[in-house]
Amino acid sequence: MGSSRARIAIDAMGGDNAPAAIVTGALQAASELDVDVLLVGDPDKIDSCIKEHQKDANFPNPNQVEIIPADEVVEMHEEPLSALKRKRNASIRVAMELVKKNQAQAIVSAGHSGAAMAAALLHLGRLRGIDRPAIGAIFPTIVPNKSVLILDVGANVDCRPKFLEQFAVMGTIYSQYVLGVEEPRVGLLNIGEEPSKGNDQAVRTHQMLVDNPLVPFFGNAEGRDILSGNFDVIVCDGFAGNVVLKFAEGLGEIVLNILKEELTQGIMGKMGVTLLKPSLKRFKQRVDHVERGGGLLLGVAGICIITHGSSQGPTVYNAIRLAKDAIDHNVLDRMQSQFESPKQLTAVPEPTAES
Amino acid sequence: MGSSRARIAIDAMGGDNAPAAIVTGALQAASELDVDVLLVGDPDKIDSCIKEHQKDANFPNPNQVEIIPADEVVEMHEEPLSALKRKRNASIRVAMELVKKNQAQAIVSAGHSGAAMAAALLHLGRLRGIDRPAIGAIFPTIVPNKSVLILDVGANVDCRPKFLEQFAVMGTIYSQYVLGVEEPRVGLLNIGEEPSKGNDQAVRTHQMLVDNPLVPFFGNAEGRDILSGNFDVIVCDGFAGNVVLKFAEGLGEIVLNILKEELTQGIMGKMGVTLLKPSLKRFKQRVDHVERGGGLLLGVAGICIITHGSSQGPTVYNAIRLAKDAIDHNVLDRMQSQFESPKQLTAVPEPTAES
Repeated sequence: MGSSRARIAIDAMGGDNAPAAIVTGALQAASELDVDVLLVGDPDKIDSCIKEHQKDANFPNPNQVEIIPADEVVEMHEEPLSALKRKRNASIRVAMELVKKNQAQAIVSAGHSGAAMAAALLHLGRLRGIDRPAIGAIFPTIVPNKSVLILDVGANVDCRPKFLEQFAVMGTIYSQYVLGVEEPRVGLLNIGEEPSKGNDQAVRTHQMLVDNPLVPFFGNAEGRDILSGNFDVIVCDGFAGNVVLKFAEGLGEIVLNILKEELTQGIMGKMGVTLLKPSLKRFKQRVDHVERGGGLLLGVAGICIITHGSSQGPTVYNAIRLAKDAIDHNVLDRMQSQFESPKQLTAVPEPTAES
Repeated sequence: MGSSRARIAIDAMGGDNAPAAIVTGALQAASELDVDVLLVGDPDKIDSCIKEHQKDANFPNPNQVEIIPADEVVEMHEEPLSALKRKRNASIRVAMELVKKNQAQAIVSAGHSGAAMAAALLHLGRLRGIDRPAIGAIFPTIVPNKSVLILDVGANVDCRPKFLEQFAVMGTIYSQYVLGVEEPRVGLLNIGEEPSKGNDQAVRTHQMLVDNPLVPFFGNAEGRDILSGNFDVIVCDGFAGNVVLKFAEGLGEIVLNILKEELTQGIMGKMGVTLLKPSLKRFKQRVDHVERGGGLLLGVAGICIITHGSSQGPTVYNAIRLAKDAIDHNVLDRMQSQFESPKQLTAVPEPTAES
């Protein structure tokens, strides 16, 4: 990558809290992460959001923040492809173009995920050897400081075994080089541990993963394995993955609500809660998937991070950090070469930062 | 039903903790629930488990407990159909026969769920009008005292829209008459709220549910709606349902573990935890799906409750209580008549006990 700072294109108009939350997260990233942020969208709105932060202690060096005009937005309710065709100046398209033209090395969007996927395919295309890109999401597990990458969580509602096999190869590389797992354990989401479990597709996929030397396959993962920490990567179709993602997303909030209700019964409970406030906050952060930054679009010829539509500043910041990690670890080239001239995972290399 | 006590056949040999945990739960049920329990399995083993409880204060009237001999068991790793054919005297078969011959009104098993499903189909058959029976599971929600029935959670990994429609009709009746929900809200598990979301099958199912006057359909349910309390019944295929079930099952335990780790950091935290022990126990019970009793086999011509293989006494007791509720509310006849001479849900009747 050389010595120049990573440049990251940000769809400033995408998401429920855009552009304010997006700008907040982007400015923090520019200040703390040694990246330049290219904020794509309505210049006036973005500029007034930036002005709100001008007195912040950690306001970044102004030459690390650039505004790229784009006067249209793909709205959440729109059908992605037709909206993209109609809105040629949509922020997500302009941001993708920056990556396409090498003016940015990655894109981050909290907008319509279907539109981000469609725009990525349109402008960047797929990596050679990949049939279908997937959206990956990083979940916390019960093991401290251990997370698990689940893919696909929504891009492909129907999957053929070959797609799932490709997800497994991509997930392995991502787990090693971006998430820093030296020897990732890959699982196939299924309804039982035995190879014979599940429908015909699951059985065939299981066998393909067993046979694939590029995938450190450790068998079927059941629903309980998502949080167990037994796996580093779990592959599944986008339907099951999306259901699990959305189930998990609300969980931190729900658990905390139930807990507060139960905890505040009686005076002893109330005292306990006061003592425990900092712990409960840490707990929520740990359970709450949303804090982690967001989904990764794997398989397109560019680094694309799709965060949740409801993202606030910290989530956007984390998404940008994830993008920077992917750039620093040269993950695209590594994936491409694994599909073009596969290397068996005999000795799993140490992940090394390259920036 | 008359005035005689309900008789419930229990597969005493099924499950990881059989027969001890099964006998424990069954004896408690016989003592507290006004039911007779028929313990099916190895007479010596069952008898010695019963003897362990003979000095318990709440040991039931001995004529409420009967042992029915069966000298074989379908093991967890066995392929259901071939095992059932080979083991003609398997406890699950003998128990089903009791229901078939009207010597019991319901069956409870913690054994191989696939074998229970196969045995139910073999001995009892389906209700007329049902293509595929489903396994239903009751989940807690964030709303106090409100639960949600999810079906299918594992019987049918592939589903046609017609099957899902039948699940919705059965789920509605079960929700009304067994779970006591006056006006159940039914949802279709999907990856977005809009009718156009999901794959072709999801879109077609959505339309069928909109058009079906027997189903109080409130649209697509996303993953986050499983615990939100927005729905009383959610239908899905057995793959997604099983993943969600198993994801949720471990959750109470996992959340509690994370919580304990976070809470016990520092002296203030330790004091807090001591004060909160009773609340944490209540919390776990509320989150922990497993405490609720287990799955319901809906669509077979008999009342069958399938509990988790790891069930302990309290879970078995709850499963028997669920079976008794289903008997008391005459749920089989109600389902059958809804498929034979459908009545629109214009005025939702009050659930009434009939025992």
